[in-house]
Amino acid sequence: MIGGGSYAVGDKLPSVRSLHLEHGISISTALQVYTHLEKTGWVEAREKSGYFVRYSHNIRPALPPVSNPLPTACQVQVNEKLAMFRKTASAQKTISLIGASPETSLLPTAKLKRALQLCARELDTSYIPYGDISGYEPFRRHIAKHCLNWGRAVLPNEIIVTNGAIEAAVLCLRAVAKAGDTIAIESPTFFGLLLGIESLGMKALEIPTDPVTGISLDALEDAFKKKKVQACLFVTNYNNPLGSCMPDSRKEQLAKLLQQYQVPMIEDDVYGDLHFAPERPRTVKSYDEEGLVMYCSSWSKSIAAGLRIGWVIGGRYHERIAQLKFMTSAATGLLPQLVLTKFLDQQRLDLHLKSLRQQLNIQTMQMTRAIQEYFPADTQLTRPNGGISLWVVLPPKVNTWQLHEAAVAQGITFTPGSLFSSQDRYHNCIRLTNANPWDEDQEWAVQTLGRLSSEQLK
Amino acid sequence: MIGGGSYAVGDKLPSVRSLHLEHGISISTALQVYTHLEKTGWVEAREKSGYFVRYSHNIRPALPPVSNPLPTACQVQVNEKLAMFRKTASAQKTISLIGASPETSLLPTAKLKRALQLCARELDTSYIPYGDISGYEPFRRHIAKHCLNWGRAVLPNEIIVTNGAIEAAVLCLRAVAKAGDTIAIESPTFFGLLLGIESLGMKALEIPTDPVTGISLDALEDAFKKKKVQACLFVTNYNNPLGSCMPDSRKEQLAKLLQQYQVPMIEDDVYGDLHFAPERPRTVKSYDEEGLVMYCSSWSKSIAAGLRIGWVIGGRYHERIAQLKFMTSAATGLLPQLVLTKFLDQQRLDLHLKSLRQQLNIQTMQMTRAIQEYFPADTQLTRPNGGISLWVVLPPKVNTWQLHEAAVAQGITFTPGSLFSSQDRYHNCIRLTNANPWDEDQEWAVQTLGRLSSEQLK
Repeated sequence: MIGGGSYAVGDKLPSVRSLHLEHGISISTALQVYTHLEKTGWVEAREKSGYFVRYSHNIRPALPPVSNPLPTACQVQVNEKLAMFRKTASAQKTISLIGASPETSLLPTAKLKRALQLCARELDTSYIPYGDISGYEPFRRHIAKHCLNWGRAVLPNEIIVTNGAIEAAVLCLRAVAKAGDTIAIESPTFFGLLLGIESLGMKALEIPTDPVTGISLDALEDAFKKKKVQACLFVTNYNNPLGSCMPDSRKEQLAKLLQQYQVPMIEDDVYGDLHFAPERPRTVKSYDEEGLVMYCSSWSKSIAAGLRIGWVIGGRYHERIAQLKFMTSAATGLLPQLVLTKFLDQQRLDLHLKSLRQQLNIQTMQMTRAIQEYFPADTQLTRPNGGISLWVVLPPKVNTWQLHEAAVAQGITFTPGSLFSSQDRYHNCIRLTNANPWDEDQEWAVQTLGRLSSEQLK
Repeated sequence: MIGGGSYAVGDKLPSVRSLHLEHGISISTALQVYTHLEKTGWVEAREKSGYFVRYSHNIRPALPPVSNPLPTACQVQVNEKLAMFRKTASAQKTISLIGASPETSLLPTAKLKRALQLCARELDTSYIPYGDISGYEPFRRHIAKHCLNWGRAVLPNEIIVTNGAIEAAVLCLRAVAKAGDTIAIESPTFFGLLLGIESLGMKALEIPTDPVTGISLDALEDAFKKKKVQACLFVTNYNNPLGSCMPDSRKEQLAKLLQQYQVPMIEDDVYGDLHFAPERPRTVKSYDEEGLVMYCSSWSKSIAAGLRIGWVIGGRYHERIAQLKFMTSAATGLLPQLVLTKFLDQQRLDLHLKSLRQQLNIQTMQMTRAIQEYFPADTQLTRPNGGISLWVVLPPKVNTWQLHEAAVAQGITFTPGSLFSSQDRYHNCIRLTNANPWDEDQEWAVQTLGRLSSEQLK
C-alpha cells in the first residue's frame, strides 16, 4: 500500500495493537512486520507516536536514461585517473562508500575459520608441491555443482581455477584478442575491466546500456555488422556500476548474435549470486551452444575476496586459456582452494548467500532512501535488483572529481563516474556501494555528499 | 687425494681402524668420514673388503662448450613443443627426472604445518577482505631482511608480492617491452621464461652462455651496440638448465653495461639460495645503481612451490609493475603470505637451507657419478655448484625427443633439450634435475637412459 501510494510519506500507520486485533495476527508478528519495514527503510518509529511512512517507491529518484556513448573504439586511459583517485582517497581515514566486496561482518567468517582449522589439522603436505595447472579437482567439482544454479551442466575439467576473476578475464582477453583489437563493453563499466583492456593495449567500444536491461542488442549487432568487434566483455548480471541485469530472454538473443557473427564473449558473473529477488538469473553461457562464451566468476563478493580465487569456463578457448595461465602465473595456489573446499563441504553456502542477499537488499534500500532524502531534486538513480553498486547521476553542472575532493576533506570517499568510461564521460556521476551495513556514519556521509552537491549547483 | 688422482677409481682406501690409529681420530669420526664419502658417491663399501674409490672429479664427463646460438632474434615457439612433451610424459606412471622443485621430503613440512596451525588458531578475519596491493607488510619485511644475503639493503615498500616468480617476471617483461620487442636471454634457458616471452609476442635473442660463468658479456655488448635489445632476462645464479653462476665480478661488469646502454634487466634469482659452496653468490641487482634491474625471486625451490608466492623488486619500474599487477590479478592472496610469515617468524629458514643445500649437492654428485658410469663415452655434462639442474650433451647423432619416447615406454621422464631454446637447438641434449633423493629407481632410470642413448648411436 505504501508502494501503491495509499499511504504517503509522513502518514501514520496502524498501531501494532490494531494490526493484531483487526488482522488476526499475534502482537509479535505485527511487531516483526514493522521491524522489517523499519530495517528496510520504508517506515520509521517515532517515540510514543507509532510508525510513520518514511520512503516510497513512488518517490524514488528517476532512473537514468540509456547511456549514449560515442560509437567509436577508444584507447583506454583509466590507469592514470585511478592513480590520481587513489592518491586523493587514501589521504586520510575515511568513511568508505567504495567497498568492492561486502564488509567482513556480512561474510561467513566462523565457517571459514572452521574450514581453515580443519585444513591445519588434517592437511599433510599436499599443498606444498606445484599443483594441478587447472586447479584442485575437488574444488572444481564444487564449482561445477554451483554452475547448475545458472542453468548449465558443467564438468570439472571444463574449469580452470585462477587468481581471482580479474586474472580470468585478462587471460580470456589475451586468448581471443591482441593489442589494437576492439573489445565491446557496457557503458559505464567497472574500471578494473577497463584497466585489463588498457594493460593489453586493446581498444574499448562502449555499447549503449540500459540501467535495467543492460546493453542494447541493436547497437551491438550494428557494431558486429561493421566488423569492428574482436570480442565482448560483459557483466550481464548486476553489473558494476549500473546494476543492470539482462533479462534471460535477451541473454538467449545475445548468445544467438554471438553465434551468427562468430564473436567470442567474456561473461563476468561475479555478482550473479547476489540477486535480491528469489530467482537466480541465468547467464549467456547457459545459452552458449558453440563454446563462444568464456564464463568468469569468483566468490570474492560472497565468501572472501582476500583468498583471490576465481575461475573460468573457457568453452572452445579452454586449451588456449590454460596455456596462457601456465605462462602467466603457473598453477593457482592450492592452500586457498583447500580452505574453500572445506568450507563448501560444510554445505552452508546457500544459507549464507540467502542471508547475504537479504542484507545487501536492505542496505541498497537504505542508501536509496538516503539519496532520495539528501541529494538535489533532479538526481537520477539506478534501481538494482542485485549486486553491490548504485549509480547516481547528478545534474550535469556537478563535477564529481571536485565533489570527491570536497568529500575527502570531510572524511568521505566514493568513486567518481569518469573512472567507469574509456571516453572521459560521466563527470556528473558517482558510484556508491552497499557493501557496508547501514549506520549513522553512512547516513551522515550520504547526507554530506548531498549537501556538497547542492552547494556545487549554486 | 681422490680429486688429485693419488687414489684412482677402484683403489682400496685405508681401513677405518688404520685411519683411527694413524691419524689420531676416533673410530666414530673415521666411520663418519667414509659414510660421508659414500653418500656423496666418491667411495663405495664392499662387504668384508672395506672402502674403494668409486668416482673421481678427474674422470667427470667433459664440460659442454660455450653455447653458440644464432645472433638473431627469433619468435619463440616453445608452447606447442611443451604441449607435445606433456602429452607423452603424462602417458603413464613414471620415474621423474624432471622435478622443478625439491621433493617434499626435503622441505620443512613440519615447520610449515606448525605455521599453518598457528594461523588457524590466531587468525581472525584479516585474510578475508582484499589485501594491500603490494603484499602483506610483515611478509615483505622478511623478504627485505633476506635480501641482505645477496648484498643489498632493501626496504619493504620496494617489494611487490606476486603469484610466484613467473608472474613477477612476466609483469616485468610487460613493464619494459611490448610485442615485437627483443629480449636477450641465456642459451639454453628455462622454457617457463621462453613461454612468458612467447605469450607476450616478444622475440628472444639467445646470448652465447658458458656452462660455468654464464652469458658472454662481449656478445651482449655487441647486441646492445646494435640497439637490438629492449630488455634482458637472465638467471644469473645456477640457471636452469645449465647451472652456470656468473662470478660476482662479472655481475658488476654486467650492471655497468646495463647502465652504459640504459637497458633494463630482469634478474630471476629463484635458485640463488641453493649454493653448494659456503658463500651465497651476489646478484646483479646488488650492483644496480640506477634502478635498471628488476629482481624476481620466490621460495618455491626451498619452502613450498604450491603456495605460489614470489616477489619483485622493481627499481625504477616499481610503479609500473604495481599497476600492471593490479590490472592482471589484483593483490596476491593473503593466506599463503600469512602462513609463510609465521614460518619465517620461527627463524629456522637458514638452518633448513643449509641442510637442503647439502642434500641437493649430494644428489647432484650421485647423478653426476651415474651419468659418468652409464652414458656413452663422449657425453658432456655441466658441473653446477648450486641449483637443481644438470645439462647433459649427448653425441650429436642422438635425438632426445626419440630418446624421450623410448624412455617413457620404460616408465622414465626427463626434459628434452630443445624445450630450452627459441631456435630449435639442443636436440642432442637433455635436462635432468636433482630434485629427488637418490635411490635405486633413480639409479636404474639413469642407467636405462644411458643404455637407450647408446642404442641410438648404433
